[in-house]
Amino acid sequence: MTNVITICGSVRKGSFNRMLANALPALAPDGMKITDAPSWEKFPVYNADIQNGTGFPSDVEALAAAIRKADGVIIVTPEYNYSVPGGLKNALDWVSRLKDQPFVNKPVAIQSASGGPLGGARVQYHLRQILVFLDALTFNKPEVFVGAAQTKLDAEKGLHDETTRDFIKQQLAAFDKFIARVKA
Amino acid sequence: MTNVITICGSVRKGSFNRMLANALPALAPDGMKITDAPSWEKFPVYNADIQNGTGFPSDVEALAAAIRKADGVIIVTPEYNYSVPGGLKNALDWVSRLKDQPFVNKPVAIQSASGGPLGGARVQYHLRQILVFLDALTFNKPEVFVGAAQTKLDAEKGLHDETTRDFIKQQLAAFDKFIARVKA
Amino acid sequence: MTNVITICGSVRKGSFNRMLANALPALAPDGMKITDAPSWEKFPVYNADIQNGTGFPSDVEALAAAIRKADGVIIVTPEYNYSVPGGLKNALDWVSRLKDQPFVNKPVAIQSASGGPLGGARVQYHLRQILVFLDALTFNKPEVFVGAAQTKLDAEKGLHDETTRDFIKQQLAAFDKFIARVKA
Amino acid sequence: MTNVITICGSVRKGSFNRMLANALPALAPDGMKITDAPSWEKFPVYNADIQNGTGFPSDVEALAAAIRKADGVIIVTPEYNYSVPGGLKNALDWVSRLKDQPFVNKPVAIQSASGGPLGGARVQYHLRQILVFLDALTFNKPEVFVGAAQTKLDAEKGLHDETTRDFIKQQLAAFDKFIARVKA
Repeated sequence: MTNVITICGSVRKGSFNRMLANALPALAPDGMKITDAPSWEKFPVYNADIQNGTGFPSDVEALAAAIRKADGVIIVTPEYNYSVPGGLKNALDWVSRLKDQPFVNKPVAIQSASGGPLGGARVQYHLRQILVFLDALTFNKPEVFVGAAQTKLDAEKGLHDETTRDFIKQQLAAFDKFIARVKA
Repeated sequence: MTNVITICGSVRKGSFNRMLANALPALAPDGMKITDAPSWEKFPVYNADIQNGTGFPSDVEALAAAIRKADGVIIVTPEYNYSVPGGLKNALDWVSRLKDQPFVNKPVAIQSASGGPLGGARVQYHLRQILVFLDALTFNKPEVFVGAAQTKLDAEKGLHDETTRDFIKQQLAAFDKFIARVKA
Repeated sequence: MTNVITICGSVRKGSFNRMLANALPALAPDGMKITDAPSWEKFPVYNADIQNGTGFPSDVEALAAAIRKADGVIIVTPEYNYSVPGGLKNALDWVSRLKDQPFVNKPVAIQSASGGPLGGARVQYHLRQILVFLDALTFNKPEVFVGAAQTKLDAEKGLHDETTRDFIKQQLAAFDKFIARVKA
Repeated sequence: MTNVITICGSVRKGSFNRMLANALPALAPDGMKITDAPSWEKFPVYNADIQNGTGFPSDVEALAAAIRKADGVIIVTPEYNYSVPGGLKNALDWVSRLKDQPFVNKPVAIQSASGGPLGGARVQYHLRQILVFLDALTFNKPEVFVGAAQTKLDAEKGLHDETTRDFIKQQLAAFDKFIARVKA
């Protein structure tokens, strides 16, 4: 069994990216189980004085532990101002300060959804640069950019666009092979 | 008088970038006044549900108002994981959601300091991409990357490296001319 | 009169970006004249040994002179492998080596067309980083990404999509104002 | 035996990056053999009309064949104008058009040298984005940025800086393990 967790870059209730993350378990290939990572919503803004004072918040430890335990991670995120949402980046900043860095050699895939035609392309390349520092094994292709998200995702039916569903199935199957390939 | 505000990307007390921002008022050319922007430290993680529920936090409004009022902005920031600190990005995300976007046509310069030799180069290009969306007028050169920051900045003497002081004076003088040039 | 030149990133005859560049003169606002820059097609691969031996090729000098003389430059380019076409980058590399650098303080706008949905977004941010070094004044928004180019451009009718024509008119009018704003 | 080839981004005779590439065979771990890739110096500027007319130049086919045959590739390149040298990018553009794309699943490491303190950091992240499209398996860390290259490399003694030699040995040893890890 390949255990994969999703980290979602948005915390609002009606988020398209939240809906997208929710759709993934049903699209996974046989042998891959996809579950939600613990939430980063309550992380304080990163401040080394907190880390050196009261230590790492328990929520940070919980997210890091889940990443370490997983065989792979899928980051599903909106693009904010042509880059990574500050909240998601703050979560990555926190876990990156732990001694036993959770992303080292961890297979990571990326998905993004947006209302516009680009589907969040710009956020993905910023994330990829961040993941170089974190020393993750970032999956390449196929890349999933869900543009015109309001026509493909809704609160009731979830991800109802068949073309997108098929495409995401392809990414998940390829990610599964990638995980097997790079396993030490 | 040219009024410029500094937004610092770090909130820890002993931050090199905080020391760097503190050094700027004394290095400004005649006719430029540099002051601190209101703090973003207490901003919650951006969530559209907050914005649509209780509205914008007053701290967010205060930062946006200060940006709107300033003739220019200098962002002084560390690099976290090869990109923008999550907290700073979260601050930019919040102010970008206001109707009267504060960064439109606002002259912005960037500085970064780090312990390594690169001085935070990577964070600056991610910031520049973000500032395209925000429609700021981002100043080009000279770029200020303060590498080996521990040899140039300390809590007692502040920015004590003469070469760096001179170089920053050059940037501030050039930024002053840039502000005059692009003023509508 | 505002004189603007276009530099096209593709040299193939049936290029969508060539067609796009060809469409611009008819979309320019009153008072803006748009013409083609001299070709970079015959530039050799940049090699400092050529520069130091036989000197700059006359084609390089011609392109640089045209950039210096223009009030603004529009780069119209495809995306090759998620970045700038090697040929176009080579042209920029050559002109950047001249003593009197042609792009300094030059207003530059960017357009890209591609067959896919993203319309070349990735090439534009790489170009923007390059233009920081060249010290150009790069125009922000609106950004022109012509996706699904085969449905909007053809050899006979040129740029026949009305929505795209209108949008480009908006960019050119805004670029005209930007040029006026930043003129020393 | 692990066979690795180097692709150098500069073609001038006295290039620091050429000297750096030349130093690598002596720094390779036991079991890794490093040789030069066939030259891209004579590639014409990419033009699909050439490809569709007279076909791929034989030099392009030779470079692609060498990449396909190698167990790994090291790109050693200067930074031109904050990005990839046009000539090197043109070489990548040519080989990317071949049906049997040579970089797919190919382990790739990157090194850069420059006279300034940054050692070419900016070129590496543009290259990494390009390598996503090419679907290469790009090695993360340690990253090799050789700053102040004139103090570490010269024509007579080659790479004579011991700290840099040791650091590069570490990268090559880690790259060797990475190649073993990701081998299908």
